[in-house]
Amino acid sequence: MNPTSVSAYTFRAIDVIRKKRDGGELSREEITSLVNAYTKGDIPDYQVSAWLMAVVLRGMTRPETAALTDAMLRSGEVLDLSSLSAKKVDKHSTGGVGDKTSLVLAPLAAAAGLAVPMISGRGLGHTGGTLDKLEAIPGFNVNLSVTEFRRILEICGCAMIGQTAQIAPADRKLYALRDVTGTVESPYLICASIMSKKLAEGIDALVLDVKTGSGAFMKNEKDAAFLAELMVETGERMGKKVVALITDMDQPLGCMIGNALEVVEVVDVLRGGGPEDLRELCLELGGWMLHLGEVSATVAEGKKQSEKLISSGHALEKFRQMVELQGGDPRTIDDPKKLPQARHTVIISSPSSGYLASLQCEQIGTACVVLGGGRERKEDSVDPTVGIVLHKKVGDAVSKGEPLATIHYNAEAPAARATQLLEASYKITDYPAQEKRPLIHRTIGGA
Amino acid sequence: MNPTSVSAYTFRAIDVIRKKRDGGELSREEITSLVNAYTKGDIPDYQVSAWLMAVVLRGMTRPETAALTDAMLRSGEVLDLSSLSAKKVDKHSTGGVGDKTSLVLAPLAAAAGLAVPMISGRGLGHTGGTLDKLEAIPGFNVNLSVTEFRRILEICGCAMIGQTAQIAPADRKLYALRDVTGTVESPYLICASIMSKKLAEGIDALVLDVKTGSGAFMKNEKDAAFLAELMVETGERMGKKVVALITDMDQPLGCMIGNALEVVEVVDVLRGGGPEDLRELCLELGGWMLHLGEVSATVAEGKKQSEKLISSGHALEKFRQMVELQGGDPRTIDDPKKLPQARHTVIISSPSSGYLASLQCEQIGTACVVLGGGRERKEDSVDPTVGIVLHKKVGDAVSKGEPLATIHYNAEAPAARATQLLEASYKITDYPAQEKRPLIHRTIGGA
Repeated sequence: MNPTSVSAYTFRAIDVIRKKRDGGELSREEITSLVNAYTKGDIPDYQVSAWLMAVVLRGMTRPETAALTDAMLRSGEVLDLSSLSAKKVDKHSTGGVGDKTSLVLAPLAAAAGLAVPMISGRGLGHTGGTLDKLEAIPGFNVNLSVTEFRRILEICGCAMIGQTAQIAPADRKLYALRDVTGTVESPYLICASIMSKKLAEGIDALVLDVKTGSGAFMKNEKDAAFLAELMVETGERMGKKVVALITDMDQPLGCMIGNALEVVEVVDVLRGGGPEDLRELCLELGGWMLHLGEVSATVAEGKKQSEKLISSGHALEKFRQMVELQGGDPRTIDDPKKLPQARHTVIISSPSSGYLASLQCEQIGTACVVLGGGRERKEDSVDPTVGIVLHKKVGDAVSKGEPLATIHYNAEAPAARATQLLEASYKITDYPAQEKRPLIHRTIGGA
Repeated sequence: MNPTSVSAYTFRAIDVIRKKRDGGELSREEITSLVNAYTKGDIPDYQVSAWLMAVVLRGMTRPETAALTDAMLRSGEVLDLSSLSAKKVDKHSTGGVGDKTSLVLAPLAAAAGLAVPMISGRGLGHTGGTLDKLEAIPGFNVNLSVTEFRRILEICGCAMIGQTAQIAPADRKLYALRDVTGTVESPYLICASIMSKKLAEGIDALVLDVKTGSGAFMKNEKDAAFLAELMVETGERMGKKVVALITDMDQPLGCMIGNALEVVEVVDVLRGGGPEDLRELCLELGGWMLHLGEVSATVAEGKKQSEKLISSGHALEKFRQMVELQGGDPRTIDDPKKLPQARHTVIISSPSSGYLASLQCEQIGTACVVLGGGRERKEDSVDPTVGIVLHKKVGDAVSKGEPLATIHYNAEAPAARATQLLEASYKITDYPAQEKRPLIHRTIGGA
């Protein structure tokens, strides 16, 4: 035993539980001991779940949140990407419907000379997941070894994989427990979960996209801003450059929802097209990635550079390269019609003339899950072909009988259920809305 | 399956946890389902501990507390004592130092014609336990079968045993979990735990002695009164007559602390002697037991009757009978010198002249535990002989060098530690205190 590591502190889980229960502030040592003991299996689930509930109801201070993030991050391997000379930058979204920006941004930032070691998740609830979208590309392998991940990063500047058992194992164990004990909904625990995984990537800077609106987990902007501030401060305390954009998720982002359909839209954007909101958000987030990665002096400059990387075809070329390196069929990028397609389509028509006032965004996400594009149970497999294409977005004028959306499906029963959900999601009014929700509500951090 | 028992309600532990977490009020059905599922082992500890922490921090309404008590009570056997024609009455104390009233009151109330089916506990923390005191009487058996318990009750009117596996098994399981998850300290959970066990005795009326002061679990009167109100209301909701007396535990009750020593003091009181505070509290609690048991029209009358039952020797005779029926040696009651005794004694003398201003009551209880009179670990055995005899109580005048207390011990090292604790417990001042703490602070319920 190394005598310098000997501490006078004796950890007892019960003391830490009681202290948090009574509203006290836990020391870094107490939090680290708890996380380490739990990861090693030295303390039982029932003590940790009591502690988690105390955290949900009592909250955490900023130093406690940073200590928890740090302990979870250090519970496993922290990627050593020091062999890469480029700045390491990543982007993370809290989850939404039709949010495929990661697939645009990883190659875009790599094309700008940055390294993007992106570790992503799968669809959760009504939201889509980057890994599910990537797997819609035939052959694409998201389960790379760390060695392979590093090799592709070195060649191409970006690589996109799923969480490994080596990265933040404490988060994996804690998340599974939170899921069944009603302790998911705490900004402090959400922050520590996200930030521990992202910072384990060994990055220099992080752009956070915190969604708010009817399709987001944080329905109201206040909650989203609170989480955003928490994540920015936690990342900064750990010496990283962090910015959080509070962005709109009151309607789906872009027009396509569903795994293969979203890859189609990604290629559209990388070819200089695509829906305006999706394109705009990609440029804004890209601008921040380039700025925090010190490739451009300002965000505005970063945005311009991002536009150029798209119009020059460099970003698309980078995407094609990454797909090929990760085992995907690059011909699907050259010709997205080669991506897997659903057998049937059905059109949802407008029941009246007027203006599209709102879309119940979570229901649209759920409709995609119902079609098979997401999981109703953990063990479900995902159908890459199904999904929804929106022909109208909020604020658009519509005529009675005009197509609002097309459902892509393979089986009748789920299609009928999805149709019901979709039809109930549209609100059409006689006059256009006075105010339009902004795409970007607020920017926090980034100093 | 009985079709009348089929309910449309589908129980999911996670929903009940979330509802309590968010401050909602749980239905009787939700609480009953949770308790039954946990007792059966259908839901894991980690879900219940998260729920318990939510209860600690969110509290419970009165209907929720009653529903929890009821569900715990019904988790096991409820004693059917309908064969006994006498009213069934019990007394319960929240625990203190030197509190031996149960040993006086069970035979006293039985001598008045009531039935006292008393199920008691062991010492907890710094407090003594009725079972440990009874076992100081050689041969006394607290582990009777329910049949034997009932038989002795029928013969003698009182019997005193420990909790059986059949009585409120939900409480046993929940208490063990609370103990290791920092969820003991909730008045709602304490109320349900106490009341479920007591009401499972099949009693008609209950007298609660809720202790407050430096030697009680509830250090301040406000907390004690809150718990008392909760228990009274919960018992009344379940159709029982209940009164709670908030009584003083800022110094030990009586003069003797330690298992065999306390039996000596019990016999003193039953012989019409004993310290004034102990005697007075026994008469007050006895008055209430007789009144709620409908043996006397008023509490004052019940007190007088209790005095008579002592002066006539009937209460002592009943105690002797119970001891004999439960296998104890009755000669120790006739001649308490026959009770087991410690090998050594040492006197603590007053360091100065003046007035005894206060006693750190919890420390005195701890000193007795240190001597071996209680348990530092669950698995420890208890030494019945050791303990402390107080020669002075709060308010008494003392001269320098006069004995304050005598320690009865068998081993030097614990005696030295106990001496230190005791010496530090005394506060002697030049002038007597202006105000004396009352023995009975408040009476709640009893209508």
